[in-house]
Amino acid sequence: MATAGKIGERALIEIMLRWFTPMPGMPLPFWDDAMAVDLGDGRAAVLNTDMLVWETDVPRGMTPYQAARKAVVMNFSDLGAKGVQPQGFMASLGIPRDLEVESIEEIAQGFEAGAREYGGYVIGGDTNEASDIIISGVALGVARKDKIIKREGAKPGDVLAATGPFGLTAAAFKIILEGLEAPEGLRETLVESVYHPMARIVEGVALAESGAATSSIDSSDGLSVSLYDLSRSSGVGFRVEALPIPQEVAAYAEQHGLDPGDLALYGGEEYELVFTVAEGRLEDAREALAGVGCELLELGVATRETGIVIVKNGVKSPIEKRGWEHFVGA
Amino acid sequence: MATAGKIGERALIEIMLRWFTPMPGMPLPFWDDAMAVDLGDGRAAVLNTDMLVWETDVPRGMTPYQAARKAVVMNFSDLGAKGVQPQGFMASLGIPRDLEVESIEEIAQGFEAGAREYGGYVIGGDTNEASDIIISGVALGVARKDKIIKREGAKPGDVLAATGPFGLTAAAFKIILEGLEAPEGLRETLVESVYHPMARIVEGVALAESGAATSSIDSSDGLSVSLYDLSRSSGVGFRVEALPIPQEVAAYAEQHGLDPGDLALYGGEEYELVFTVAEGRLEDAREALAGVGCELLELGVATRETGIVIVKNGVKSPIEKRGWEHFVGA
Repeated sequence: MATAGKIGERALIEIMLRWFTPMPGMPLPFWDDAMAVDLGDGRAAVLNTDMLVWETDVPRGMTPYQAARKAVVMNFSDLGAKGVQPQGFMASLGIPRDLEVESIEEIAQGFEAGAREYGGYVIGGDTNEASDIIISGVALGVARKDKIIKREGAKPGDVLAATGPFGLTAAAFKIILEGLEAPEGLRETLVESVYHPMARIVEGVALAESGAATSSIDSSDGLSVSLYDLSRSSGVGFRVEALPIPQEVAAYAEQHGLDPGDLALYGGEEYELVFTVAEGRLEDAREALAGVGCELLELGVATRETGIVIVKNGVKSPIEKRGWEHFVGA
Repeated sequence: MATAGKIGERALIEIMLRWFTPMPGMPLPFWDDAMAVDLGDGRAAVLNTDMLVWETDVPRGMTPYQAARKAVVMNFSDLGAKGVQPQGFMASLGIPRDLEVESIEEIAQGFEAGAREYGGYVIGGDTNEASDIIISGVALGVARKDKIIKREGAKPGDVLAATGPFGLTAAAFKIILEGLEAPEGLRETLVESVYHPMARIVEGVALAESGAATSSIDSSDGLSVSLYDLSRSSGVGFRVEALPIPQEVAAYAEQHGLDPGDLALYGGEEYELVFTVAEGRLEDAREALAGVGCELLELGVATRETGIVIVKNGVKSPIEKRGWEHFVGA
């Protein structure tokens, strides 16, 4: 008998989507980072919902405050990736009967901290009894429809770029989940990327304002999966020519004999924006990001061939579609 | 040590709300049925989120299709109670690894059926791995701010009214949860109220359009709790002079020696609207509801004294604040 665990998250979503009548004039298609409803005046209400389940999504050592803040970050990040400023955050909370009130206060503080940090507000929520802690977050923002950056829209020749380097969280999960050691200072930097992730909201909004980005996604499922998702929606391939990796990740990889490129490509739970820019608009995008204190990092180029490859020392090799997917593998 | 189970849902929410900075110009305050964000042009985006946890919220015999449809109904109902037409439905789904794909298809069909039944669309969602089935729904609608019916606004002298009678679900839960029997035909009608609940969307929208309602709430936590919530938000009391009870509930109560008034007052999971109408506007409200095929049922009157009482055969007795609350009792 086919089960969720056997077919995996993406196949599940495909099966579910078959049953839904699309809303006429949906400003964002299914399979994008967020959902949107046309407001009829050139604007759209843009929403996202994402669930954090304690048992499967919250790594050892993460506090309720950190988990709650992260629930905001992951929901806001999907709006940021669309170039939309989040305004409201709501949460539906599942709470076990024996959870201490102190932890619940910490959760509330995490929501408040996350929302205010990115210019939004907690506007309400709902509590329920559950056997595990469940934080189902919702983000809402409003944006001009023609400014929203979709996953579709990349054209061959567009520059592939990102708001930051990759691999901190993949290295951190090796420490947290697999117990691979790191010197104290390095350890702190790495695990902080998991316990205190940052969303790229002002960066996404600046890109949207510039009108220079042709497609965008966040890297929450890992860079490799993000590239495959952009590729699928836009109908282009990608040639990655540079893989920005923080020196901490390089140092950690060397210490443990790991491939730093693998850490950068096949991680997840990090929230950089991965986007494409029309060739002639690269400086506009760079300036827009610089205006909010962010350096645009060039990764490569969108290609007519739909494969996704990386070029290293003149040698081209395929990037696998691999990263975090619920239900599948470990 | 204080735990969620010891202090109960309402105390928990109070504790959490202390930490949140209210959004300036929030069109709906905390403690209302739904949340809202000002759209700046006289309109508001109105949202609600409500979670259904299989283990605690889904009664025996309910199918995945029915549970998914109910998740839509409960989220849409809170918008309906504010007079807002729901447009979009999203769900964050928690799915156990061993759940059959067939059940997941049923869940998708339930979302679609519930959304389309009330004029809305499924606009997307998110899936996650969890140890239990969790359906965290989100409803979105857009409405003119001055048409939204809040929980606050009832004035002494206002007529207390409802869109339908009460008690079907309370009787049904006696059958489903406690095994109290009922003759076959009666049984069907009663349990149908739990497995296939109905939301009052066109009714709420018609009331909002009429401008005659001064406050409104749905009865999802039970009529008694709804009255206490309206009372708390509006600063009035209520004198209930008539308690509309379906004949099926009366027959069932007689069969088992139960008080039909208790079934009507202290149930829950039914989705009638409980609202108040300015005295001189009663006929307008009645006509507005009649226009969508609904009979306005008068329950009583809002009073200056803040107590909530019922008058039966000339005898006044208090209505207890009792009904469904997560974490507390059975």
